[in-house]
Amino acid sequence: MFSEAEAKTKSPLAAAFLDERSRLNGIVDEADNKLLKRIYNVDHNAYLEGALPARTKELMGLVASATLRCDDCISYHVIQAWRLGCTRQEQEESINVATVVSGTIVIPHLRRAYALLQELYS
Amino acid sequence: MFSEAEAKTKSPLAAAFLDERSRLNGIVDEADNKLLKRIYNVDHNAYLEGALPARTKELMGLVASATLRCDDCISYHVIQAWRLGCTRQEQEESINVATVVSGTIVIPHLRRAYALLQELYS
Amino acid sequence: MFSEAEAKTKSPLAAAFLDERSRLNGIVDEADNKLLKRIYNVDHNAYLEGALPARTKELMGLVASATLRCDDCISYHVIQAWRLGCTRQEQEESINVATVVSGTIVIPHLRRAYALLQELYS
Amino acid sequence: MFSEAEAKTKSPLAAAFLDERSRLNGIVDEADNKLLKRIYNVDHNAYLEGALPARTKELMGLVASATLRCDDCISYHVIQAWRLGCTRQEQEESINVATVVSGTIVIPHLRRAYALLQELYS
Amino acid sequence: MFSEAEAKTKSPLAAAFLDERSRLNGIVDEADNKLLKRIYNVDHNAYLEGALPARTKELMGLVASATLRCDDCISYHVIQAWRLGCTRQEQEESINVATVVSGTIVIPHLRRAYALLQELYS
Amino acid sequence: MFSEAEAKTKSPLAAAFLDERSRLNGIVDEADNKLLKRIYNVDHNAYLEGALPARTKELMGLVASATLRCDDCISYHVIQAWRLGCTRQEQEESINVATVVSGTIVIPHLRRAYALLQELYS
Repeated sequence: MFSEAEAKTKSPLAAAFLDERSRLNGIVDEADNKLLKRIYNVDHNAYLEGALPARTKELMGLVASATLRCDDCISYHVIQAWRLGCTRQEQEESINVATVVSGTIVIPHLRRAYALLQELYS
Repeated sequence: MFSEAEAKTKSPLAAAFLDERSRLNGIVDEADNKLLKRIYNVDHNAYLEGALPARTKELMGLVASATLRCDDCISYHVIQAWRLGCTRQEQEESINVATVVSGTIVIPHLRRAYALLQELYS
Repeated sequence: MFSEAEAKTKSPLAAAFLDERSRLNGIVDEADNKLLKRIYNVDHNAYLEGALPARTKELMGLVASATLRCDDCISYHVIQAWRLGCTRQEQEESINVATVVSGTIVIPHLRRAYALLQELYS
Repeated sequence: MFSEAEAKTKSPLAAAFLDERSRLNGIVDEADNKLLKRIYNVDHNAYLEGALPARTKELMGLVASATLRCDDCISYHVIQAWRLGCTRQEQEESINVATVVSGTIVIPHLRRAYALLQELYS
Repeated sequence: MFSEAEAKTKSPLAAAFLDERSRLNGIVDEADNKLLKRIYNVDHNAYLEGALPARTKELMGLVASATLRCDDCISYHVIQAWRLGCTRQEQEESINVATVVSGTIVIPHLRRAYALLQELYS
Repeated sequence: MFSEAEAKTKSPLAAAFLDERSRLNGIVDEADNKLLKRIYNVDHNAYLEGALPARTKELMGLVASATLRCDDCISYHVIQAWRLGCTRQEQEESINVATVVSGTIVIPHLRRAYALLQELYS
């Protein structure tokens, strides 16, 4: 498994995303909202190894994120899937499922996802 | 791999859904809209064996469908995943990812999905 | 222009939809909520003849409704577009735009729309 | 505070909804999915008395549900808000906020909500 | 009640948002589209004091905006709720309802909302 | 019909959007994903002259894009409709339909659309 630091070294887009995400999560942490912490915790648990492997769940997180057209969420799961060793082709096929289900409205988001994929898999 | 007929024998909910879907697809077929046929064809191809196994893609179709809260789409992919040999636990974990990403608004739909799962896996 | 009564004579699906819509609108009218009445009024005005013909706007209402996957809204605009003399082909092409933009998640809804189109244009 | 039983006595629509919800929740309970149970638990906690009163949170749940156009969720929060003593006018104003933000696509859902409000507040 | 100017003095994020919003609203005003003006007017009226206090309605606007994941709308209602004297805890609980209902897809947006809350309530 | 180059000369906003879109499409092209190419192709065909004129379909693409609140998609169809000779009033009425159907959540996006319209039609 690759580290976040390795993702940041490999891809300037990943670095910019992860740094801003980390800065903002710091602000959320400071607020110390109990219910929100539980939501973060449930979120964390949904992607753990289970009947399905963690790498499949990250790709499913990518499908859900692309389906709902959330750039930050797409970037996050693309990076996580890369860290867990998913191939570029697996990522593209996951994005294809989301694009077929959710339509061409996904295209502006997949364009940005492909820019990130290009950096991570170069 | 199980047939549609086996799904219908096992589950009255699957039978009711598949029969109505088949009846309405007959009406769509008659209309013979060229662009729509191509959309159906692209849709079909998105779930074929590739870098990812067909069964994983069906579960991803389930994730996308639950994320977007479409009962018919959920039923379809639950049945397809069952036909391809996915376990109930794999189906539940897929629905969990969708529910975490898309929220409790998914719950009324997962309730109905669990009723279908109960019949298919009993 | 055809009347609602003619739509109901031609199509049992249209009749069932329009009767239930009318019954529920009666309940809303009784409540006499001032802001809601203004929303209904703005809604009415959005589809009036202007720089674009009313029939084009009804087809646009159909596009928006199919895009957002609302069966009742789709039925309403399909009937309105039929009443204003739109052809079946114009309705299908409008639904195609929505299905391409919003994806295969629209398909269960367009199936039901095609059943209504079949009755209205037979 | 009124009980669920009182809601069911007052309103046939509430009774039908709550009975079906209860039946399906029984099926979900049987499956005993750990992550899903935690989601249900977080959901429960989000509506508890806090800086905001529980009744305001139920109305906010109604706003979120109407915004996302989920009939079951709307019915649930309308009933909960009624049980906690919210007035009909408060419920209507909450629905108005959702309808203004999320548009006329909400109207088919608010029609059904008004039918439920009529029974509960008669 | 605090003024927009006070919000801008307190928070650079609020200032940047409100200035850009004001610049773009100037362009919309110039176009002088009659129907759009009526939509703006209905929007304005939905948040006025009524059976529910204006401050509760602003928090409901925040719930709807977070539910639909619109950064600009979230910023607007966070600022309005601050101007009307809502506490930070009330804002966080409103965002919690939206996040529970609409899922972790809301998280990137609530991160940015928390950055704004931090400035306004410091 | 106007060319993309003419749109870029007339409007700095169009130029910035089209250049970035072109750059990212280059990255997508390089990846050479077969299914995605078919999706692009179906997308292209949905807007071709048919029972409905191409210009009407571009306006419908605008309606669908504004309904789903996708800035890039809105910019694209506004530019395409301008290139095909649609008037500003036709574009505004199309946006009005989307805003009425999809609500005030569309307003931040239409503000940006109006800035683009102002440049293209000045």
